[in-house]
Amino acid sequence: MKIVETIAALRNTLKNEESIAFVPTMGNLHEGHLALIKKAKKEAGFVVVSIFVNPLQFLPSEDFNQYPRSFEADCRLLHNLDVDVVFAPDEKMLFPSRQEILIRLPAVADTLEGEFRPGFFQGVATIVLKFFNIIQPDIAIFGKKDYQQLHIIRLMVQQLNFPIRILDTEIIRAADGLALSSRNQYLNGPERQEACQLFQALNNIVCRITSGQRNFLQLEQKAIEYLSGRGWLVDYVSIVNQQTLLPARTGEQQLAVLAAARIGKTRLIDNIELTVKSDID
Amino acid sequence: MKIVETIAALRNTLKNEESIAFVPTMGNLHEGHLALIKKAKKEAGFVVVSIFVNPLQFLPSEDFNQYPRSFEADCRLLHNLDVDVVFAPDEKMLFPSRQEILIRLPAVADTLEGEFRPGFFQGVATIVLKFFNIIQPDIAIFGKKDYQQLHIIRLMVQQLNFPIRILDTEIIRAADGLALSSRNQYLNGPERQEACQLFQALNNIVCRITSGQRNFLQLEQKAIEYLSGRGWLVDYVSIVNQQTLLPARTGEQQLAVLAAARIGKTRLIDNIELTVKSDID
Repeated sequence: MKIVETIAALRNTLKNEESIAFVPTMGNLHEGHLALIKKAKKEAGFVVVSIFVNPLQFLPSEDFNQYPRSFEADCRLLHNLDVDVVFAPDEKMLFPSRQEILIRLPAVADTLEGEFRPGFFQGVATIVLKFFNIIQPDIAIFGKKDYQQLHIIRLMVQQLNFPIRILDTEIIRAADGLALSSRNQYLNGPERQEACQLFQALNNIVCRITSGQRNFLQLEQKAIEYLSGRGWLVDYVSIVNQQTLLPARTGEQQLAVLAAARIGKTRLIDNIELTVKSDID
Repeated sequence: MKIVETIAALRNTLKNEESIAFVPTMGNLHEGHLALIKKAKKEAGFVVVSIFVNPLQFLPSEDFNQYPRSFEADCRLLHNLDVDVVFAPDEKMLFPSRQEILIRLPAVADTLEGEFRPGFFQGVATIVLKFFNIIQPDIAIFGKKDYQQLHIIRLMVQQLNFPIRILDTEIIRAADGLALSSRNQYLNGPERQEACQLFQALNNIVCRITSGQRNFLQLEQKAIEYLSGRGWLVDYVSIVNQQTLLPARTGEQQLAVLAAARIGKTRLIDNIELTVKSDID
């Protein structure tokens, strides 16, 4: 496994590869990332994993500085998975001057995560586009944990005509249901115990929809009340259409339930997809 | 020479080419375009010329509908220059749905042309980026006639890490100095005779700077008065730094004089680069 730090060296390494899969990460790898990488290994002859904590996608108030970095442990994991190249540029390499050209996204980027993290998706889309141009992969793989991000990346690839196939992987969860995330490290003991309640609340919505309830606003509201009552600060719980990420309407069948909430100082996100059988009146 | 209308067919045609030069055009080809294409032929083994009148770069008030289209004559010219592929997609091919993802440009895109054609460069950058992703050229060639456009494309390639070398060609002029442009066709007889005065005015500024004048604001103002006095409606005459396109300051050596003005209903642009010898006080 090669560890490459410069764009020139990376391009040189990749220039004769015919089938490249790319997995972008911010490091601090867990089983969720490893699922992405295993899929990459299956789908392409050559796998590039980037490790880069992208400053463009953090608000000034957010946790850019304390975001967990564990480069050597990450490299051991990637080596064990037989990854071909780890691309680990520093900020100067990706931003030799201030990034002044950015990707302008449609309204969907201002909802859900975008409402609470303004500029987040613009930062994500811009760095992903830069990586696409540096690596020129045939395939890029993103997790469903960041559901809206996956949606926006697919939209970008389609609307900007990137010749890249976007694949996804399912969320990997701890035994109690908590979705794996680098930010879970921020949780203290009691918070970690409580954290699975976010999944519980989403799962409860899914069960109620499956058993016939269709008052989505009420379901969202009850989940927010449930979590708030247990001490969470809820940003949103939202039942959306999978294709558009717009609020789901009765009769739509491909839905997803998305949530973001804070327990203590840690902000967690989670989601569940569900398919509703057509209602027979 | 192949004429290709779909993205899939184009990608299929290009997939084994090793050295591709790309020349984007809106058709209605003149000697200015041909200079781009001759350069492309010299620099790469395979030349793709696109012909597409890009709706994203026209304001609603502008001449999108009447913009001259001459596809068959264009193809004869391209055939004679031994171009390999003409890519002539229709709007549906490039915009199967409304283009909602656009390139967000820095402040330089809001000055000069951008001040008088808001959104113009965002439309140019977005279509060029789409073409870059469709064609994946090694080289792309732009004329200096659209000086600010060339600047912004270079910036985009650098800031978004496109592995594409941007080359340029000098302005091609008629015998009287008028820069060749598709829009020259809009000029009637007397307008065509008058049109070379735009170049004259720029050239006059260059002569005065060369002979030591450094009051750039006054030189700009005099050129505006000169043209206005002859019936032109002047958008701007601006002496700028070549590297930044910001207003030139005394002591800077790599300058360009840019102008846009309307004669009758036709809006023309032109520019001249100049290098100032260092002032010895």
